[in-house]
Amino acid sequence: MAKAAPLPTVPELIALKRDGKALTATQIEHLIDGFTRGEVADYQMSALAMAIYLRSMTPAETAALTLAMRDSGDVVKLSQARGRYVDKHSTGGVGDKVSICLAPIVAACGVRVPMVSGRGLGHTGGTLDKLESIEGFSVDMSVADFVAQVDSLGCALIGQTADIAPADKRLYALRDVTGTVESIPLITASILSKKLAEGIDALVLDVKVGRGAFMKSLDDARELARSLVRVGKLAKKKVTAILTPMESPLGRTIGNALETREALEILTGGGPRDLREITFVLGAEMIRLAGLAKAEGPARAMMASVIDNGAAARKMREIIAAQGGDARVVDEPDRLPTAPTRVKVKADRAGFVHGIHALEAGMTALGLGAGRTRADQAIDPRVGIVLHKIRGDRVAEGDVLAELHVAERKGTAPAAKRLLAAYEIKPRAPKLQPLVLDTIRR
Amino acid sequence: MAKAAPLPTVPELIALKRDGKALTATQIEHLIDGFTRGEVADYQMSALAMAIYLRSMTPAETAALTLAMRDSGDVVKLSQARGRYVDKHSTGGVGDKVSICLAPIVAACGVRVPMVSGRGLGHTGGTLDKLESIEGFSVDMSVADFVAQVDSLGCALIGQTADIAPADKRLYALRDVTGTVESIPLITASILSKKLAEGIDALVLDVKVGRGAFMKSLDDARELARSLVRVGKLAKKKVTAILTPMESPLGRTIGNALETREALEILTGGGPRDLREITFVLGAEMIRLAGLAKAEGPARAMMASVIDNGAAARKMREIIAAQGGDARVVDEPDRLPTAPTRVKVKADRAGFVHGIHALEAGMTALGLGAGRTRADQAIDPRVGIVLHKIRGDRVAEGDVLAELHVAERKGTAPAAKRLLAAYEIKPRAPKLQPLVLDTIRR
Repeated sequence: MAKAAPLPTVPELIALKRDGKALTATQIEHLIDGFTRGEVADYQMSALAMAIYLRSMTPAETAALTLAMRDSGDVVKLSQARGRYVDKHSTGGVGDKVSICLAPIVAACGVRVPMVSGRGLGHTGGTLDKLESIEGFSVDMSVADFVAQVDSLGCALIGQTADIAPADKRLYALRDVTGTVESIPLITASILSKKLAEGIDALVLDVKVGRGAFMKSLDDARELARSLVRVGKLAKKKVTAILTPMESPLGRTIGNALETREALEILTGGGPRDLREITFVLGAEMIRLAGLAKAEGPARAMMASVIDNGAAARKMREIIAAQGGDARVVDEPDRLPTAPTRVKVKADRAGFVHGIHALEAGMTALGLGAGRTRADQAIDPRVGIVLHKIRGDRVAEGDVLAELHVAERKGTAPAAKRLLAAYEIKPRAPKLQPLVLDTIRR
Repeated sequence: MAKAAPLPTVPELIALKRDGKALTATQIEHLIDGFTRGEVADYQMSALAMAIYLRSMTPAETAALTLAMRDSGDVVKLSQARGRYVDKHSTGGVGDKVSICLAPIVAACGVRVPMVSGRGLGHTGGTLDKLESIEGFSVDMSVADFVAQVDSLGCALIGQTADIAPADKRLYALRDVTGTVESIPLITASILSKKLAEGIDALVLDVKVGRGAFMKSLDDARELARSLVRVGKLAKKKVTAILTPMESPLGRTIGNALETREALEILTGGGPRDLREITFVLGAEMIRLAGLAKAEGPARAMMASVIDNGAAARKMREIIAAQGGDARVVDEPDRLPTAPTRVKVKADRAGFVHGIHALEAGMTALGLGAGRTRADQAIDPRVGIVLHKIRGDRVAEGDVLAELHVAERKGTAPAAKRLLAAYEIKPRAPKLQPLVLDTIRR
């Protein structure tokens, strides 16, 4: 095919970015296309990633990178006849099981939710690992089956297939070992390329902020949120980013089966307040973006209604059954696997809980076997942490703060000590913290 | 072996440099050692190279990198009984055949010259390719034979063996395709690691400046020169950098056999003025650093003497014979291969030659087959350019400016046109240009 102008060579393109120049969409497509086909070597892509890390990218470049990565594999085509497709994505936190309750609730409200989730790595858990604690539940599905299930049930909960944005998969693996993870344009393209390949119309992003999150400061989180919203708009999608705190774990559980159980409680009106509130905030925005409600109030009322009338729980049973799982867990949570032993962690002084260091709590659960430090590691779905006391609770010395759910008692003393140290107990009651820090729509 | 403190992981080390932090010598050794042993992947090293390119390195870091790369292979041990070992290195120019006359002249003066040279790539030629135009001459030698020849003759002229600084060889290949060549710390480490591995005591660097050189501006060249001298000193070697112009080709010839012939002329008192002068400037500094003369004047007198009394030519005959070549070329230059055909390039107007664009002239010779654009390309030793008119010469319209030495006349019109365009002819005579722009010793 004849080209308008000869493209610079790959080293020349890397040098342009190195010198802080903006690459054109054609140049970026050429690079990602070459990378996907193996013509641009890993060592060239990692040098480019470092240049992008240090020189950044304009919104137009980031959008071009996102679209090129989206187009490196299959782009799911969903029938436009049945309404808008809206997904939610979280940048990852400790105890973040929102997807598991949010998806069936908003699907029961009529939003079409083609949800592609990830696995846990490091101190943050992954929705896929949590879902797999349901016996028989499969997160592996062909694109055709995925489309069919979203069509029939309005929702499917799956993992990234090899056909979806393969360039992102390879680039992420490279970034992970070359010190180029924390780059706003690269994070933006990584998140959005996969989501856009799902065929969504709109996306709600839960950008976590704080010591247990990827973004430690509100400023950094806002910058990422703005980049995601801006690039989403350039890709002609409605994107809202909601910034939520991740100083302490979300909810009262950490660990796969424990978190799944807690998320299922939300479907029938139970569960912890913070988890329910964040589910409602994110869900209301999804419903709004789907065009099913004009404002947050009516959207929240719809969600409350499907919880009250059992439609949310019914939707979850349908989804679990469709994906090969034991749908009875929704009503009989004891069917989830449980750890044989519990270790109590008791308060060493009296006062009020001001917080539980999310990163430390996540690392403690990881150490118990709830997570993995390498992608090929096995996890134990049963183990984890139940937080009996959370921020705002008054405690007396000797009160049980939390319980470790473990495979065996032996060797758990360091974990108990670490979790105790993660508890911040002070003499006076803490102030109430907002559960939403900012909402960014443009 | 027990370590004082655990080292950061490779991605963490890359991130430190990415964030502009200085790496410790131990950290740099760990990275280069891992790279040499294949534990640090190419894609990690290229990301690090980009971080170094954009964040630079302190002199201490650059010295540590240089020493780590030197120690990635064999370090030649030369007997200290017979005097100091001094080498010369040029950053590369068009028509730069200085090594071929310089080495035997200073060796005849008593300097011990363990010279390891490179091949040509792109528009600049390589000493090895030039030497190989002498029939039978071999630049491949084991380290043991190299040491023995330097010991017996005071000089050997060889190519980089696989055992000398292998980390540099691999890193350079990566830099070449990842836009990370033009980095002062990386260039410094690349040049000095190889030279230090030769076992030298002192080094004279010919840092070329101008449109035919790697460094286009005097400021950039000075920065590189200062880095080389500083790091040389940190490695406890005497290093002098001499900045010389590379606006027009050096001497009157470009092409392998043609340049060898011109360099051999210097040995017997002939040859072009600029080539002779630069040889004397660099050689006098080598003699000074070897401790054989206290100042430039006496050192130049020594050089003039070995040319006059035939000792320089005799030394070259000995070296050629020792390395399997036909030593008769020194006295019978017609034994060098010659091109079957010549194409005259005539002046299209009258005036004075103000210069010949070195890069354009080099590219013209490359196009004739005198050089290579890829490392695996074959070259034709016979072809090249003889410049009959050089800077300062008065020309009439129709005068022969230059001759292309070619394999066949066919298809040479574009080369002739390109060389003519490289000639800058103006109405008035140009001012005299200095042959040395600066000398940096600290």
